[in-house]
Amino acid sequence: MRDIRPLVAPRSIAVIGASTNAQKSGGVLFHNLVRGDFAGPLYPINPNAAEVMGRKAYPSLADVPEKVDLVYIVLPRDHVEGAVRQCIAAGARAASIITAGFAEASEAGRVDQERIRSMAREAGLLLGGPNTIGMVNAECGMMGSFVNFPRWETGGVSLFTQTGIFTGALMLGVMSAETQRLPVGKSIDVGNKIDVDELDFLDFVADDPGTTVIGFYIETILRPAEFFAKAREIRKSKPIVMLKPGHTSDGARASLAHTGSRQAETPEIEAGIAESGIIRVEDECEFVDTLRTLGFLPRPKGRRVAVATTSGALGVMATDLVVKAGLTLSTFAPETVARMRTILPDWLPPENPFDFWIGIDVKGAHQAHEVGLGAIMADPNSDMVLCTLLAPGNADFPEFGPLMHRLRREHDKPIVLVVYGGAARERWIKDIEGAGIPVMRTTREGARALALLAQAAS
Amino acid sequence: MRDIRPLVAPRSIAVIGASTNAQKSGGVLFHNLVRGDFAGPLYPINPNAAEVMGRKAYPSLADVPEKVDLVYIVLPRDHVEGAVRQCIAAGARAASIITAGFAEASEAGRVDQERIRSMAREAGLLLGGPNTIGMVNAECGMMGSFVNFPRWETGGVSLFTQTGIFTGALMLGVMSAETQRLPVGKSIDVGNKIDVDELDFLDFVADDPGTTVIGFYIETILRPAEFFAKAREIRKSKPIVMLKPGHTSDGARASLAHTGSRQAETPEIEAGIAESGIIRVEDECEFVDTLRTLGFLPRPKGRRVAVATTSGALGVMATDLVVKAGLTLSTFAPETVARMRTILPDWLPPENPFDFWIGIDVKGAHQAHEVGLGAIMADPNSDMVLCTLLAPGNADFPEFGPLMHRLRREHDKPIVLVVYGGAARERWIKDIEGAGIPVMRTTREGARALALLAQAAS
Repeated sequence: MRDIRPLVAPRSIAVIGASTNAQKSGGVLFHNLVRGDFAGPLYPINPNAAEVMGRKAYPSLADVPEKVDLVYIVLPRDHVEGAVRQCIAAGARAASIITAGFAEASEAGRVDQERIRSMAREAGLLLGGPNTIGMVNAECGMMGSFVNFPRWETGGVSLFTQTGIFTGALMLGVMSAETQRLPVGKSIDVGNKIDVDELDFLDFVADDPGTTVIGFYIETILRPAEFFAKAREIRKSKPIVMLKPGHTSDGARASLAHTGSRQAETPEIEAGIAESGIIRVEDECEFVDTLRTLGFLPRPKGRRVAVATTSGALGVMATDLVVKAGLTLSTFAPETVARMRTILPDWLPPENPFDFWIGIDVKGAHQAHEVGLGAIMADPNSDMVLCTLLAPGNADFPEFGPLMHRLRREHDKPIVLVVYGGAARERWIKDIEGAGIPVMRTTREGARALALLAQAAS
Repeated sequence: MRDIRPLVAPRSIAVIGASTNAQKSGGVLFHNLVRGDFAGPLYPINPNAAEVMGRKAYPSLADVPEKVDLVYIVLPRDHVEGAVRQCIAAGARAASIITAGFAEASEAGRVDQERIRSMAREAGLLLGGPNTIGMVNAECGMMGSFVNFPRWETGGVSLFTQTGIFTGALMLGVMSAETQRLPVGKSIDVGNKIDVDELDFLDFVADDPGTTVIGFYIETILRPAEFFAKAREIRKSKPIVMLKPGHTSDGARASLAHTGSRQAETPEIEAGIAESGIIRVEDECEFVDTLRTLGFLPRPKGRRVAVATTSGALGVMATDLVVKAGLTLSTFAPETVARMRTILPDWLPPENPFDFWIGIDVKGAHQAHEVGLGAIMADPNSDMVLCTLLAPGNADFPEFGPLMHRLRREHDKPIVLVVYGGAARERWIKDIEGAGIPVMRTTREGARALALLAQAAS
């Protein structure tokens, strides 16, 4: 087990290629480190400047007065190898190579990458990259990326990604959102994954008190036996979500061109992922949705789902999708049914799915939602709630946000929300911000989120 | 074959229960008919008012000076049967019963509904409903719904739905959107489907020059043999999309409570849907996405997909998802490769997926997108294009909208777009409005949309 903290949680950082030009990658990255308020010393390495963004610059790494933990290398590719040599000579503990054009690009690039790898391994220098947007560790204020994030919401989600620009775009989307942001404490992108790998990261987050949920975007698993053993060990306390494309033969070929990965997915890898309890997702959206669901919600005590809805059609769809996702529909307890009856006309017996649209006519929008959702959240026979609501004018009421905050707080029960139609939709979603209720766009996604949540608990 | 035009494309309309109170369902519905500029005469039936919203009111249907085509019935449920009798006595051709509380609610409601059905059948009165939000036919200006739509975009999509409020919420969401609206000429909601059914509607739209794409949300198929035969006959010229939940046993039970449907889905029905070339979708979002894709795009000439991307990771995911959706990855023609080469560095040979992110560094964002997407749209070996783009600042350029409009216009080739990250995303989507390019939220949805499009063409 290697200690990768110098790479992912460094105490000091140098940037080779820290440009005074804030348009260039090396300038943006250094600027982001400064702006992000990194907790330790920051050393720009630039032979042509006395300072960069107010920080004293050094002509070379050798001139820095201490042995730094981490060095970002943001140089044209032909200068990268020399920079890695500088890191070794200066006794740095880790380096992140931002530059692209190695194993993902050509055979010559692969040879260069392999030579750099051997050299660093021999010297004990931890490496990330090449071909990466960099790394964020919000805990120590390391915004080590050349992507400009408008803000960053920290939290228990820790990500490890093997890709170039994708992590940046994904996080840009997530962090730019007004609501439902994913709380990400660490986002470690290792690009072509020259050295530090998923097992190193898993060992690190296993012992990291700040990590509660783990997300992997990876294209290969380099040490599967050890990785799966470790995953099995920790996934109950820290669930692991994995987006691993390249499992078709065409996909594997595309993966080679992307990050230089040569490993086609074998049935053994596929089985290993399933058997170790890793939650495997299919695309980028499900990746974020699942991390958010795990980050927001407690684990269910079983697989029995209550469907609450103000649309009969969405209730029928939800029923199909819940059953097809491998969950079961709960049978409401008598006291739940009795409470539901108070908002329905006599001729309509409450069932699961519980469609209480007509309760809005009978009791008004506020009371219908309060009693209907209150009953279902309290139902002792239901482990989870899939809630699909319509938000046209007559279903709207100003207390929707406070009601949902209260229900979520009072019941230790996972609830996923889907909202349709009407001007109120956006306000409802805004008003439940901070309540820890994940909002999905579709009924299918809602059912799937609960199924994956149940998988994490099983 | 019945002529259902008096119900779905009436020349005159009366509303029994047209209230002077614009808050009540009967008031809203009548107001919407007036505001929607219905092409023919409109008769409010209200014994307590001289006029309703500026239109002369009549105490009963018998007092209306002509035999009307269509009567909307918006009354408490105990008055519905009498109103249907009035319709028959007055020689009306069709009625839409808005009121709920029949077969979906109780056994007594089912008996009442059956009695109303028999009576109307005997008299030759076409019926829609009960338990419906009503009907829209934008061609004749019939906004016959108690849901208030902020606007309505007309077009070649014709919908037939068996549900109460769901169609209203779905259309409210669709029509409230700033971009990517679905052009819906006819939206016929028949609620519990007391009489006019999916086969009647299929016969109607088959001969309707305004219909180019047909969408069904139904919970039963009442005359499957004839319905599937008709579907097979017309689906090549007018593709049919079907959202039919209730195919699990729990779902079938939920469907009974929703619209009083007692028909569990048999393997014969399932096979019939597949064999007649109907495109079956899984949830409400895929329903709208598929209708939009069919409405916006030409049919592909084959199943070969080109993936254009500025994210290697999204390219790998797209490759997996395209293959898993039953499509194939195209092999670019030599002239396509030659053109792609001009925006890439020498060491990077163009492949499919075509990741041209680095072209942005080499040639700038505008030229990279123009040449890259131009080459892929012109490729003779590709039948469809799945385009997943990143929109951070350095990938942005003001001519994105015009470029996409031009590419779509110049090539008779389906293209689906997924955009990620950055402030430019929303502007890009706004700027391609009107180009006829469907935007999907995720790579999975993009691949699925192309697969369903290919299914429609096969």
